[in-house]
Amino acid sequence: MPEIDPWGDVEIGEYSEKMENFGIEPVSEIEDMMPENRLVRRGIVFGHRGMEEFLEAAERGEDVAMMTGIMPSGVFHFGHKTVVDQILMYQDMGADITVAAADIEAYNTRDMDLEKSRRLVIEEYLKNYVALGLDLDKTDFYFQSEAGNRHQRRSKQFAKHLTQNEVEATYGSASPGKIASALTQYADILRPQFPENGGKKPTVVPVGIDQDPHIRLTREVASKYQESEFLKPASTYNKFMRGLQGGKMSSSDPKSYIALTDDIEEAKQKIDQAKTGGQDSLEEHRQEGADISEDMVFELLAFHLVEEDDELERIRSEYSSGEMLSGELKQIAKQKVEELLRDHQKKRQEAEPRVEAFLENQGI
Amino acid sequence: MPEIDPWGDVEIGEYSEKMENFGIEPVSEIEDMMPENRLVRRGIVFGHRGMEEFLEAAERGEDVAMMTGIMPSGVFHFGHKTVVDQILMYQDMGADITVAAADIEAYNTRDMDLEKSRRLVIEEYLKNYVALGLDLDKTDFYFQSEAGNRHQRRSKQFAKHLTQNEVEATYGSASPGKIASALTQYADILRPQFPENGGKKPTVVPVGIDQDPHIRLTREVASKYQESEFLKPASTYNKFMRGLQGGKMSSSDPKSYIALTDDIEEAKQKIDQAKTGGQDSLEEHRQEGADISEDMVFELLAFHLVEEDDELERIRSEYSSGEMLSGELKQIAKQKVEELLRDHQKKRQEAEPRVEAFLENQGI
Repeated sequence: MPEIDPWGDVEIGEYSEKMENFGIEPVSEIEDMMPENRLVRRGIVFGHRGMEEFLEAAERGEDVAMMTGIMPSGVFHFGHKTVVDQILMYQDMGADITVAAADIEAYNTRDMDLEKSRRLVIEEYLKNYVALGLDLDKTDFYFQSEAGNRHQRRSKQFAKHLTQNEVEATYGSASPGKIASALTQYADILRPQFPENGGKKPTVVPVGIDQDPHIRLTREVASKYQESEFLKPASTYNKFMRGLQGGKMSSSDPKSYIALTDDIEEAKQKIDQAKTGGQDSLEEHRQEGADISEDMVFELLAFHLVEEDDELERIRSEYSSGEMLSGELKQIAKQKVEELLRDHQKKRQEAEPRVEAFLENQGI
Repeated sequence: MPEIDPWGDVEIGEYSEKMENFGIEPVSEIEDMMPENRLVRRGIVFGHRGMEEFLEAAERGEDVAMMTGIMPSGVFHFGHKTVVDQILMYQDMGADITVAAADIEAYNTRDMDLEKSRRLVIEEYLKNYVALGLDLDKTDFYFQSEAGNRHQRRSKQFAKHLTQNEVEATYGSASPGKIASALTQYADILRPQFPENGGKKPTVVPVGIDQDPHIRLTREVASKYQESEFLKPASTYNKFMRGLQGGKMSSSDPKSYIALTDDIEEAKQKIDQAKTGGQDSLEEHRQEGADISEDMVFELLAFHLVEEDDELERIRSEYSSGEMLSGELKQIAKQKVEELLRDHQKKRQEAEPRVEAFLENQGI
């Protein structure tokens, strides 16, 4: 098995070792070039490949692109929101946005039929993306199954530039389903640079580190493919939020996440039941303070609920000193989640007809 | 390595052992159901899978289809003509004809760019096919690289139904290039049964035994794919003509073949230089007769130049008894080749504008 498997479970932590093994650079070294964003400031977006070229081109006002994929895995939760926040960051910079719905990959590697993928992608992902601010008028959105002949043709040609050994070393196996999915992903990532989409341009793909194998092989294919010229895509790597109970946040375990479409009372109850870093007794807590690194509620605040650093720092300081109790922290989180969900769910309702009109107009 | 490799060299002979190993049935057992054709009568088309169903459906006047692929490997010679003669046989039966130009496969497995594939397929194959009698008005002709999104999408979905082990056992490796090519071929073979092409119907694919791995896996994929219903394709297997010097007929060795566009004097010279089964001295030849099984000129007569069995039998009898000399046999072959090439080259000239108009009209 390879150390990082895009189709398997993700090990949380040990990011730095993986960075070293795979040649990922720290974002901290280019932070002053990166757009202002809490995910960057807080080291949630922690690593990158090749971002200097992308950022310099953007700075010069040249065409740049951002590409991301949607793997339909269930309801849209705060774990997914980290990606959308990054899409919006690049959208604000003026990047072309490409969003690929990975229904071929879901079919081949998760046994999900195209109809189910379609429903999930539109209802759970696209409508929430638009509610959060994705501008469909500036977005190339498509399903892999409907990516068009040129896209599919190129994805098959990319196969020429890879050996079975490379594929096995990178993905742990060379099963036909994985290969067909991976080849499709390479075309997805290079799509903003297709001649019919304006040709070669710096492109960034924000991913979790589990997707790095696809980035590595796409960069290799991009440099070898003859029939049109591609720049190697850049990438950034974000940390994964842990589940509310600790451990992995998983679409198959509703207690591990808060969905942006969750009933508000239900969401608050999930926070009440979340794992904290508070001490067992009040006395002990006042004396030792909370263990922030094991507190899932604080993680939710830091990832998504508190925009201002000052405010987050005040909470961190009071909580880790023992002045603030876990119950008080949860109270803050519940109030902020309620506001966010209420606002989001209203926007999502407004987004629905716009998304449906877009799909109809585009014949998707 | 698997015993039969569609991307490698073909071992001539030992057909019967391979038939047994891979479950191919002898055509001799269904000969009275097969259309009247010299390739069938002479055992050149010697094996099949699942032809009973195809022939019964055709007999009942139901829709049936014939599918074949063009691998652009060089000039069009008598070795290739065996396939075209079979296409025409099924065309005469009223079968829908599908012809796939395998440019993706040539790109991935033979390092041939799409432009070169296109030129070879049109100039060397399609124009000769039409000159020989292919009716373009009733043919679905396409390049794999332009097969359309639905075709490409299905070919990728087929990957789900195959394991790496199966692919390795069948093809000897699971390289991405081979997998992408093979998946495309499965879609080519099933294309006559796509819903947009009238849905499931008995389909025959006439091939050399080296292509049987694709047939086997297509039959497997056809039985597993959920999203539309396919009948398992039927297939027939034809013997390969040997090269004029003995050994393999190869596009890279012009002395091994006669191209249908060869200059007539050149073609006659190749026959003069061909390997025969005649004895070393006249005396020996008169006494022992020719060894027909090692005579490449007789093979050419049997495959392509003599239509009537009576005439072929007379030649065989006189030549193997020693009554006819190798020079006399060559004289017969040269005269027949001259007639055939003269007629063909005229028809090919007439076919050119029709092929070009067809490609233009179809936007190919």
